[in-house]
Amino acid sequence: MTIALPTRVTIREVGLRDGLQSIQTILATDRKREWIRAAFEAGLREIEVGSFVPPHLLPQLADTAELVADAKRLPGLFVSVLVPNLKGAQRAIESGADLMLIPLSASHAHSLANLRKTPDDVVAEVAKIRAARDASGSKTLIEGGVGTAFGCTLQGHVDKGEVLRLLQALLDAGADRVSLADTVGYADPRMVRELFEGAVRIAGDRFWCGHFHDTRGLAMANVYAALETGVERFDASLGGIGGCPYALGASGNATTEDLAFMLASMGVETGVDIARLLALRERVQGWLAGEAMHGTLWRAGLPRTFEQAETR
Amino acid sequence: MTIALPTRVTIREVGLRDGLQSIQTILATDRKREWIRAAFEAGLREIEVGSFVPPHLLPQLADTAELVADAKRLPGLFVSVLVPNLKGAQRAIESGADLMLIPLSASHAHSLANLRKTPDDVVAEVAKIRAARDASGSKTLIEGGVGTAFGCTLQGHVDKGEVLRLLQALLDAGADRVSLADTVGYADPRMVRELFEGAVRIAGDRFWCGHFHDTRGLAMANVYAALETGVERFDASLGGIGGCPYALGASGNATTEDLAFMLASMGVETGVDIARLLALRERVQGWLAGEAMHGTLWRAGLPRTFEQAETR
Repeated sequence: MTIALPTRVTIREVGLRDGLQSIQTILATDRKREWIRAAFEAGLREIEVGSFVPPHLLPQLADTAELVADAKRLPGLFVSVLVPNLKGAQRAIESGADLMLIPLSASHAHSLANLRKTPDDVVAEVAKIRAARDASGSKTLIEGGVGTAFGCTLQGHVDKGEVLRLLQALLDAGADRVSLADTVGYADPRMVRELFEGAVRIAGDRFWCGHFHDTRGLAMANVYAALETGVERFDASLGGIGGCPYALGASGNATTEDLAFMLASMGVETGVDIARLLALRERVQGWLAGEAMHGTLWRAGLPRTFEQAETR
Repeated sequence: MTIALPTRVTIREVGLRDGLQSIQTILATDRKREWIRAAFEAGLREIEVGSFVPPHLLPQLADTAELVADAKRLPGLFVSVLVPNLKGAQRAIESGADLMLIPLSASHAHSLANLRKTPDDVVAEVAKIRAARDASGSKTLIEGGVGTAFGCTLQGHVDKGEVLRLLQALLDAGADRVSLADTVGYADPRMVRELFEGAVRIAGDRFWCGHFHDTRGLAMANVYAALETGVERFDASLGGIGGCPYALGASGNATTEDLAFMLASMGVETGVDIARLLALRERVQGWLAGEAMHGTLWRAGLPRTFEQAETR
């Protein structure tokens, strides 16, 4: 039986946002520019470059507007940012970002602890953001990302029906795109398959992205299960840096280079040059001396069969 | 859509063989006995306790006959051993092991380098082992395990048709069971799905086990893909120790505790008590001081949702 996986998948690099916000080191803007350029040269065409949050909360990401401006000069690069609220969204619109992601936590406990809002408050904020975006004439897309979609360290279980209700509410409020995130690494492939099938049924082409953490070693298995539901975009961070700071013991995001390898090995096109990505990983590791990085490919290298296929 | 995964899966612990043969430390027989007993108490019901190879080649496993005798005293424990040839098989039969695994390498280059035989020489050896087993009246099952089934560090590509031919040849030669192993960590979930579907079509109920290495972080994804083909038994080693010594940079076998977690999380019964398994991992780590261990669950712990489900 031939397996129906997507023929092409987009990897969205989130190391500059989800990664850098979780670690101590503050990376200089010029280094971030180098990172973005090298990621682009390695074939990545979607990058989340930062977050429009107040600089006193996340000084690591205070240069987001500059990075958007710079990244927009790279031809064909789709530039994403995270925004927590309307104020952030206004800055994102001014910056000219291609997409702004508004995170919503399906766990009420996590939402209150992390955002000081209920999930439905966030839905209401998305409606305001949509109105502001439309009024401005901006083309910045609005992505509503439902996090803690598979459970939560504070609340425990998160109801699948509630996750899907919030996804629908985000669409109704004017989100152009919706996504699902396993913020604390609780998902398994069966859960992913079931929840993503429901999400795709609701959102159709507006379902945008899967975001997995490798906390319990299942990021790649979860991506594979999501691929089987037809999802064509995944977040990942170089060297797996990042992961929710609220998730103790977390071993990071899905690793960009491991994900690129798995997809390429399965014949799913990503446009990514893995050798260049591994070279970039090494540079970033140098910049982030002392910070934990993850992944397996950097150590094991590409299979001989993979290299043979490349040179055929 | 409900996903058709097996309702029950057997994890075969191979740390005592595949793990211990790959590392420097020689574990005392009494420690191994403790390990086997604790693994049994943690709910594991199949353990590969060693290998009948000449002691001068693998002094780590010289106590295999003693371990079989000891392990056979645990009620309901199914005791496996590896044997390289007829001579080893005769010792396995004498030992009273429940199953003997004869490894065959589908890569001709790997087979010659590792076993000094062609794959078809190994098939011929299995025929002799079958005759000897039947002549002895023994009930020890014969498992033919096709390794380097997804490619090889020496040869590169391994033809899928050749893997399936060898599987059929093993069955024809009298193997009671056949298995597939990704000896060098080259498999991806799509390859697994396709090859395992072919294997199950050929062998039916005689298809026994999937053996994956986590060299490139895909062991759990590969297990999941194999589960989707209905396979109900997987090899794994505690702390992921082991992996082919010929595969440089290998990061070990599928990790027993991570695999037990993924399966339990998906509602697939294994009979394994994960807390006990994690406690055993810690003891074994103490015994193998300085040796690399792998896996993620020992660090991250069980999800809160998992614990809630356990106590409901």
